[in-house]
Amino acid sequence: MLSTQPYKGTRDFYPEDKRLQKFLFNSVRNCLEKYGYEEYDAPIIEPIEMFTAKSGEEIVNEQTYLFEDRGGRQVTLRPEMTPSVSRLVAGRRQELAYPLRWYSIPNLWRYERPQRGRLREHWQINVDIFGVDSIEAESELIRIADEMLKTFGATSDQFVIKLNSRKFVDFLFLEYFKLDKKSAAKVIKLIDRMHKLEPVKFKTTLDEIIAESKMESVIADQITELMTKKNIEYLPLDVRSHSSLQSLELLMNMLNTQGVTNVIFDITLMRGFDYYTDVVFEIFDTNPENSRAIMGGGRYDGLVGLFGVEPIATAGFGLGDVTLQDFLTTHKLLPVVTTETDIYAITLGNNSSAANEMISELRSKGINVAVDITDRKLASKIKTASKKNITFVMFIGDHEIEKNKVVLRNLPNGDEASYSVDEIVKFIKNYRSQK
Amino acid sequence: MLSTQPYKGTRDFYPEDKRLQKFLFNSVRNCLEKYGYEEYDAPIIEPIEMFTAKSGEEIVNEQTYLFEDRGGRQVTLRPEMTPSVSRLVAGRRQELAYPLRWYSIPNLWRYERPQRGRLREHWQINVDIFGVDSIEAESELIRIADEMLKTFGATSDQFVIKLNSRKFVDFLFLEYFKLDKKSAAKVIKLIDRMHKLEPVKFKTTLDEIIAESKMESVIADQITELMTKKNIEYLPLDVRSHSSLQSLELLMNMLNTQGVTNVIFDITLMRGFDYYTDVVFEIFDTNPENSRAIMGGGRYDGLVGLFGVEPIATAGFGLGDVTLQDFLTTHKLLPVVTTETDIYAITLGNNSSAANEMISELRSKGINVAVDITDRKLASKIKTASKKNITFVMFIGDHEIEKNKVVLRNLPNGDEASYSVDEIVKFIKNYRSQK
Repeated sequence: MLSTQPYKGTRDFYPEDKRLQKFLFNSVRNCLEKYGYEEYDAPIIEPIEMFTAKSGEEIVNEQTYLFEDRGGRQVTLRPEMTPSVSRLVAGRRQELAYPLRWYSIPNLWRYERPQRGRLREHWQINVDIFGVDSIEAESELIRIADEMLKTFGATSDQFVIKLNSRKFVDFLFLEYFKLDKKSAAKVIKLIDRMHKLEPVKFKTTLDEIIAESKMESVIADQITELMTKKNIEYLPLDVRSHSSLQSLELLMNMLNTQGVTNVIFDITLMRGFDYYTDVVFEIFDTNPENSRAIMGGGRYDGLVGLFGVEPIATAGFGLGDVTLQDFLTTHKLLPVVTTETDIYAITLGNNSSAANEMISELRSKGINVAVDITDRKLASKIKTASKKNITFVMFIGDHEIEKNKVVLRNLPNGDEASYSVDEIVKFIKNYRSQK
Repeated sequence: MLSTQPYKGTRDFYPEDKRLQKFLFNSVRNCLEKYGYEEYDAPIIEPIEMFTAKSGEEIVNEQTYLFEDRGGRQVTLRPEMTPSVSRLVAGRRQELAYPLRWYSIPNLWRYERPQRGRLREHWQINVDIFGVDSIEAESELIRIADEMLKTFGATSDQFVIKLNSRKFVDFLFLEYFKLDKKSAAKVIKLIDRMHKLEPVKFKTTLDEIIAESKMESVIADQITELMTKKNIEYLPLDVRSHSSLQSLELLMNMLNTQGVTNVIFDITLMRGFDYYTDVVFEIFDTNPENSRAIMGGGRYDGLVGLFGVEPIATAGFGLGDVTLQDFLTTHKLLPVVTTETDIYAITLGNNSSAANEMISELRSKGINVAVDITDRKLASKIKTASKKNITFVMFIGDHEIEKNKVVLRNLPNGDEASYSVDEIVKFIKNYRSQK
């Protein structure tokens, strides 16, 4: 016997789930198109080399849906969209008109233990600007992410936008603390996981890395101390003066001017992917129940160049549907989206072709009508409409056809009246606009 | 160096391709929702057992993207949606309100040699009715498929709807010709491929099957002769009287009454899948350039029952995006869908925050505005707008901000005038409605 359960870590979308997903994604599309972004897409299968190049080891070795196709190619279900969009841009490097504003809403796959905010299949809104090397790009992207959340009714106190810079991080560990590259990479990975670790565990692991790299142990203390700084102003002067931080301050000012005020500097923000080159950012729920980032992104100027063309300045972000829904649920912002079907039609008489004509006319005038085509009793048919949460039932009998009027009943409140086809069209359109 | 090509047999969707896809699918959605259909979705990965049960050997053994996941499960990228939708219905067998009208537009994967009308990844519009055991279901489905094509501007002479019945086919080979089950299955498979074979090759293969089954060789002649009959009326009386054919005639009459006149009986129509139980149908382009079916479907009353619940009367069809586009292209019906971006904004002065406010106001009033955020020369910025095929460029300088009017230029024809924000909103909405 076959199981009715979906594959582990994935979701089925029954009509009510799909309606909600469509509502969320269409709101997002609407928001992005207001800023001139254009949607693209790419196949869900990509060669594995595309991800080994720059995505970070953990993702490729442990978490991808890697397999060999019947032609012996090593392929994977994409775990993220950034390499694919870079491939598309590289493929038409010369013809495209920059700056390019592109978005997509792909489903992504990761093999991992399903848990809150993490599933094996999720959808991710991906937004990128190609061809802008100034922080105008980051500013626009963050502003859009902010607006997206506000579109759903979120307020500035419900989420916080955290900023950091990979250039600054590199300066800090390689130049300021003078770690070798390998140790710096280890420290960065450790800080990336910092908020999931006990402080003692963090410190002892950091001590070990510093000891292994044959540096003085006081450096571990200094790093730990620095990671507690919540503001650029609190950093030592010789750290604070680094140009990457001046860019971050400028970016924060730009955002503040545009009404995005919930932006903070977070020295512990690292981002998992290896391809980021400068500014990185993440959005977090201020409600501690949701500890995962809702959105994350940054500048990755080098990725398009991996496809054998001149590199392009690029910045972008991704926003997952699961984390977005968790955020909206926590703040009671998830809407109830009702069925698109306006009317459930029940034919009572013998003149089915006249009834069909009436229904066709309603449809051609933009009204969505489901007809009960079973031969059940009237009561069962009405019950079906009610179970489907369709508000209006329409009765068409021979008498109604003669008078060219049909009876429309509002199921939830029982109101009933006779209307001509044109009156129904007007009535339903008015009802829709008031919902 | 990484390749910029998409995985073999798949397509990248650059913004112009994605716009077209969205236009096609949204037209289809609109058409289906007028009839009360609701969209659902399911994960692209399913266990392989779901397809071995009923889909037909060839598909599962030779054509699926079968692989083992990291947990040792045999899974596949779905080659079709019918088993998944049956799984969803079975999962909520008791709670759902019948008749159920469901649709989805999933991407499907088949490992095969890419060729005209066949790719490894394609999208398929799937439309199903659950809970109706009369031909009212088939009638509605075929009527919808007909309307879908006509929505795109197709006319009745450009496509033909072919009908047959699996019940009739079983009667024909098992009862009328008295073949054993195995030979009948072979004959059915052969007829399914008939139009790809030379007549001589068809006949010799049929002769072989009949000889193997130890039947008289005249039966092969009789079958071959019968397969040439283009009309139910031309069939021998003892064949023609079978109840399944009476249903088909009734169905054709129902469709004719509703204005669907291009419906014919096709005794050679078999459909590849093993799960069909009664009426089957396919739509073909009348232009011989496209030999593949644009749409195919039928009744499959047994599939939901495979998931351990009471079976449900079911009929449905699938319509592939590649064959649909081939059909529309052949008949010059494929539309050009223009960019959603209304205006490309170029700021000229120093007061960027006042310019930003103006642009924000336009966006909040429903106008899609892309701002050039580079520091290039004016001519380059205008060239970018033109390359992006955006009709209007808006210039905002200090002078414009002072007068609260901006200059809007129609790039293709060079017209230029000054407008307030509200005038632009009105102007653009009017322009859109005339497109």
